[in-house]
Amino acid sequence: MDRATAASIFAQNPKLVQMIQGRLGSLIGRSSGYIESLPTPVRRRVAGLRAIQKEHSKLEADFQEEVLQLEKKYFAKFTPLYEKRAEIVNGKVEPTEEEVKAGDDEEQSLLAEDASAESAPKQSDTSENVTGIPEFWLSAMKNQVTLAEMITDRDEAALKHLVDVRMEYLDKPGFRLIFEFSTNEFFSNKTITKTYYYQNESGYGGDFIYDHAEGDKIEWYAGKDLTVRIEAKKQRNKTTKQTRIVKKTVPTESFFNFFSPPKPPTDDDDAEEDDAGSDIEERLELDYQLGEDIKEKLIPRAIDWFTGEALAFEELEDDDLEAGEFDDDEDDDEDDLSEDHDEEEESDDDDDSGKPKQEAAECKQS
Amino acid sequence: MDRATAASIFAQNPKLVQMIQGRLGSLIGRSSGYIESLPTPVRRRVAGLRAIQKEHSKLEADFQEEVLQLEKKYFAKFTPLYEKRAEIVNGKVEPTEEEVKAGDDEEQSLLAEDASAESAPKQSDTSENVTGIPEFWLSAMKNQVTLAEMITDRDEAALKHLVDVRMEYLDKPGFRLIFEFSTNEFFSNKTITKTYYYQNESGYGGDFIYDHAEGDKIEWYAGKDLTVRIEAKKQRNKTTKQTRIVKKTVPTESFFNFFSPPKPPTDDDDAEEDDAGSDIEERLELDYQLGEDIKEKLIPRAIDWFTGEALAFEELEDDDLEAGEFDDDEDDDEDDLSEDHDEEEESDDDDDSGKPKQEAAECKQS
Repeated sequence: MDRATAASIFAQNPKLVQMIQGRLGSLIGRSSGYIESLPTPVRRRVAGLRAIQKEHSKLEADFQEEVLQLEKKYFAKFTPLYEKRAEIVNGKVEPTEEEVKAGDDEEQSLLAEDASAESAPKQSDTSENVTGIPEFWLSAMKNQVTLAEMITDRDEAALKHLVDVRMEYLDKPGFRLIFEFSTNEFFSNKTITKTYYYQNESGYGGDFIYDHAEGDKIEWYAGKDLTVRIEAKKQRNKTTKQTRIVKKTVPTESFFNFFSPPKPPTDDDDAEEDDAGSDIEERLELDYQLGEDIKEKLIPRAIDWFTGEALAFEELEDDDLEAGEFDDDEDDDEDDLSEDHDEEEESDDDDDSGKPKQEAAECKQS
Repeated sequence: MDRATAASIFAQNPKLVQMIQGRLGSLIGRSSGYIESLPTPVRRRVAGLRAIQKEHSKLEADFQEEVLQLEKKYFAKFTPLYEKRAEIVNGKVEPTEEEVKAGDDEEQSLLAEDASAESAPKQSDTSENVTGIPEFWLSAMKNQVTLAEMITDRDEAALKHLVDVRMEYLDKPGFRLIFEFSTNEFFSNKTITKTYYYQNESGYGGDFIYDHAEGDKIEWYAGKDLTVRIEAKKQRNKTTKQTRIVKKTVPTESFFNFFSPPKPPTDDDDAEEDDAGSDIEERLELDYQLGEDIKEKLIPRAIDWFTGEALAFEELEDDDLEAGEFDDDEDDDEDDLSEDHDEEEESDDDDDSGKPKQEAAECKQS
């Protein structure tokens, strides 16, 4: 019951659900023998109904296609509003008196005489120099729980440079999220995009089926990559007993991992269906959910996220969030590294009771 | 992520969610003071964005209205298929050879030569007399978990008489589920309907907001009411020590309680917001979910539920079901009764280690 995605065809039926169900399907879908036990005339009628259902399915696919066209039609109507929003946010245009009045509702007045009179005096000197609405997108994103959980303190310095967040539909089923940045010290990209692709054939009930996501490569400036951190390790040579400091780059938690989405397992991977299987499914589900939230909640109602008003309309029980946590299972990988050196490894971080190690383990997002 | 309700506006935003959120809204929605602390020019821009968002909301409401019209347009296309299904189910029409062939897919053939040859001989004598597809709707409903949990053994005798399950849209926002029965020994109704009403004004994001449901009164024949059971109690007069058997009618679990939906609490009830409050919310949520499942899953794809094929497309984690369980809190009511008599009460059922009492408690659906 996602309130914001009323008619979104994309909220339905992601591939990962299909993946899980594909396995069970062969079990659950299997007939208990009841149908087979029916007399022939009844089985003929069942077959007749199935034929009718096939016609129904074709109509359902047509319906979903028409809903998509309707979404695109309204997206075109929304676009000028989004463009105007971007102009105000970035200080290129000021709202008109009428707009200010229309947006300053009585219940929660932003501009009530007393409020501005009391707090304004000191600010008024500098406030004329403020361009647009500073940190608009960062503030909006930090009010949306799924996104807020992705944003580290280090990320904020880069996300302050967000100029716009928007989307576009693809010609084939799917959509692209576009993050536009002002010039900054972290990366050279003007925009970083992430694209969610759906399958060309519609699924059961005519729904579009989510396929996979792809993100732009971020052109980080040297030493500015927020998705890694440098770990210094003391290594002691077993023979010479000499120690040296080795620096190594480890993946770390960052919002920008959003642009390196997890890869869905291929059919070949089916053989190794251990715990890793459910881990990748959780990560895929979180990745899908983040895209949905940005498309269906953040972009359409960014100002309500900025002010926090949108929170009042969020569902209370967002159990899905729990499912998105990553498991700690990177310790194995760490062990592999020591083999190359035949040396004992001691992490500088060990003094901190292993806390940073845990942090590194949580970010297995590559 | 309900697969079947791709574009259903009704899947969104039920009143009960609103009820819960209404309470929190005043807490969560409250500004942390951040907005108020912004310089006046910035607050003016925020107000400007709010005005733009209001225009956006109007467009969103238009969009939802257009989606509803699209749903109605396709409902009109689906209707002849549903009517033909009803005719085949009830033996008024036989499917054509082409339809039988089209519906008998190769993977799961219903009419493969060997299958019919081996199991048919004995049946073929009587099978010519079988009308339509016996117990079609009962079987379909029993394959849908939320519905199956409602259907007791006693209910089945009545639900075997289901001739059709269909729906219709109201002129105002909402829909009506129609259960049509053949003549039976339980009730005189030809149809029993349940109507889900939505509010006339759309909510946040343009969604329709669920209001409440109403069910038809079932005209039970004497002693045939499946929603109650007779409980015999031995009563002993404290003075005369004489015992007598008192029969009393207690509400019991039954699918037919679906037609007596729980009433949403009014604003006046807000004062007594104890455990009973969350209980009523759970029952309202289950009641809403059942209606949704019938409208979006059972009716559109009844044959797939009958054969069980639809199960393969169900979501695995249906945590919502748990939330629908009723609490045992009827014992208090039992105690009240004894006051009227100033007599000791002993239930006949007590021998069975209280099991039937539990059953009575679970059915607090009136």
